[in-house]
Amino acid sequence: MNFELTVLGTSSAVPTSVRFPSAHVLNAYEQFFLIDCGEGTQMQLRKFKIKFARINHIFISHLHGDHYFGIYGLLSSFALQKRKNELHIYAPEELRKLVKVQLKYLDLGFPISFHYLNFDRKKKILDTKHIEVYSFPLKHSISTCGFLFQEKERERNIIKAKIEKYQLGLREIVKLKSGNNVEREDGTVLDYNDFTNSPSKARSYAYCSDTQYYNKIADYVKDVDLLYHEATYMDIDKALAKKTMHSTASDAAKIASKANANKLILGHYSGRYYDLKPMLIEASKYHNNVVLAHDGFSFSLPYKK
Amino acid sequence: MNFELTVLGTSSAVPTSVRFPSAHVLNAYEQFFLIDCGEGTQMQLRKFKIKFARINHIFISHLHGDHYFGIYGLLSSFALQKRKNELHIYAPEELRKLVKVQLKYLDLGFPISFHYLNFDRKKKILDTKHIEVYSFPLKHSISTCGFLFQEKERERNIIKAKIEKYQLGLREIVKLKSGNNVEREDGTVLDYNDFTNSPSKARSYAYCSDTQYYNKIADYVKDVDLLYHEATYMDIDKALAKKTMHSTASDAAKIASKANANKLILGHYSGRYYDLKPMLIEASKYHNNVVLAHDGFSFSLPYKK
Repeated sequence: MNFELTVLGTSSAVPTSVRFPSAHVLNAYEQFFLIDCGEGTQMQLRKFKIKFARINHIFISHLHGDHYFGIYGLLSSFALQKRKNELHIYAPEELRKLVKVQLKYLDLGFPISFHYLNFDRKKKILDTKHIEVYSFPLKHSISTCGFLFQEKERERNIIKAKIEKYQLGLREIVKLKSGNNVEREDGTVLDYNDFTNSPSKARSYAYCSDTQYYNKIADYVKDVDLLYHEATYMDIDKALAKKTMHSTASDAAKIASKANANKLILGHYSGRYYDLKPMLIEASKYHNNVVLAHDGFSFSLPYKK
Repeated sequence: MNFELTVLGTSSAVPTSVRFPSAHVLNAYEQFFLIDCGEGTQMQLRKFKIKFARINHIFISHLHGDHYFGIYGLLSSFALQKRKNELHIYAPEELRKLVKVQLKYLDLGFPISFHYLNFDRKKKILDTKHIEVYSFPLKHSISTCGFLFQEKERERNIIKAKIEKYQLGLREIVKLKSGNNVEREDGTVLDYNDFTNSPSKARSYAYCSDTQYYNKIADYVKDVDLLYHEATYMDIDKALAKKTMHSTASDAAKIASKANANKLILGHYSGRYYDLKPMLIEASKYHNNVVLAHDGFSFSLPYKK
C-alpha cells in the first residue's frame, strides 16, 4: 500500500518565483494528510494533481503565515466544490478563531472538527486502521509542533501453498497471521513460523517544521524512515539561524543522524540561496542519505524487510 | 511614460493549475498599483518580476476570498523585507479588522493608511501628479467596486527650433506649453498653436471586478482605452451567471461596446472552461477588439494622438 510524500512548497517565510511556502502531502493507504498549508497550497495541489476531495486531515504546525495562510482559500474552494465530508484540522487553538473571522460570510456546508495541539510533550493525535499520527514539540519563536506518521505493524503473510496442503480454515489463517500457533483437535500444533513469512516493516515519516537545533527531536522521531527537517540556513548564516530560531542544514543532518533516520529531506530554504548544492554538501557531512526537496518533490517509501 | 498592465491571475473563485485568483498590476509612470490581491499574488509578482518595493497602493474591489486572501502573505513579506514606506490600501472598511486580527503577532514596521471605499457612487479616491483613480459601484452579491485609472492631460510639446529662433524664456515656454498665448513687452503676441504641438491624449484603464451585467458601468468608464471586465461564464451558462451575479463574456463585450472602450480584456474564467477560444468568439460578436487575458498577460498602452 502507498506511503508516498509530495512536497508542495520549499520556501521559508518569503516565497521566491520557484519556491512556494510550506506544505506537504502524505498519501498513506489512500488517506491524504495535508501537513501545513502555506499560501498557494491549493494551486500546488492542482499542479501536482492531488484531488482536494481526498484530503480529510490537515495538520498545522504553528501560526506563522507561511505555514497556514493557504487554509482560507482551500476551505473556500472545498465549500465552492460542495464538499460534504467532515474535515479534521489539527492545529494551535487560535486557528479556529482565525478561520471563523475570515470565513464569516461563507456557508462552508461541511463540518470541521478542530483538534488542538499540545506543545508540552509527544502525543498520539490520530489513530486510523493503518496509521498513527503523533505531534511533538519543536523549539521555535512561537509554539510549534512536528508530526510523526507511523504505519502500524502489518500482519504476517500466509504461505499460500500451505493453505491447501494443510486445509487451513479461515480462523486458523487469521491466528497464524497474527503470530500465534494453532493447536488442532488431533493435538498437532501448527507453528506460525512455518506457515507465515515476516511482514514488511512498518514505515514512518516525520515532519519537523520550523525549529532551532533541538536535541529532543531525535528521541521523538527515533528510527524514522523518512525525516523532513527544516534547513533555512547554511553554516555561514548560523548566527541568523540562532537569532530567528531556525536550523542550518548541518543542524538538520545532526538530528537525522542522532535519530538514526534512514533518509533526510531538506526544505524551508531562505530565499538568499539560489544554488542549494552547497547546502547538501554541508548536510552530507553529518548524514549519508540526504536529499534536497524542491516544489513537487515526491518520494514513495518502499516496503522493507 | 509607462502605462502598462500586467495580469497576475485569471481564475474565478476556484483556481486551476494554470490560473491563479484575481490580481492586476498597473505600472503608471513607475507607480505600481496593485488591483486585487488573490491568493498567490506575491508568488506571481516574483514570477513576473515586479518588485514588491515598487507597490505603494493596493486596491481591493470586494471581500470575496479570491480577491484578497493574498494580502496577508504580501504584507508579511513586506515586513520581513524591512519595508519602511507607507502603504495605502483602498478597500471595504472591514478589511482593516481582518488584517489586524490576522497579523496580530507581526510587527509590520511600516505604516498602512486605509481608505474605505464608497459603494454608492463614482468617486475620486486618489490624485497624484500624473494619475487620478476613481472607484465606482458594481453589482455583485456583496458590496463591490471597480476602479478607473485615468492619466492626466499632458502639457503641449514645445517646438524646440522655435526656442532659439524667438529666444523664448522659461516663463514663456511654460505658458505656451499650458496652452496660453504670450504677449511680449513690445506688443507681439506668440500664439501657442504656432509654438507647440498637441500632446498625446491621456490614457485610461478600468478594472471591472465581479459584477453581473450592469448598464451603469458603461457610463462610469465612458471612452476608456483599456477595459478589463470579468467574464466568468459563456452564454450556455448564463443562468449560472445570473444566479451567482457574474457576467458572461457577451455581457462584458456589450458593456465595452456601450462604453466605447477601445480594447476589452477578459478574465476571471470559471474553471469549467479549458479552451477559452469559444468565449472569445462570443464576446467578439459585440466588440471588435477583445483579447483573452492569461496569467502573465501584459499590455502597454501606447501614446495616442
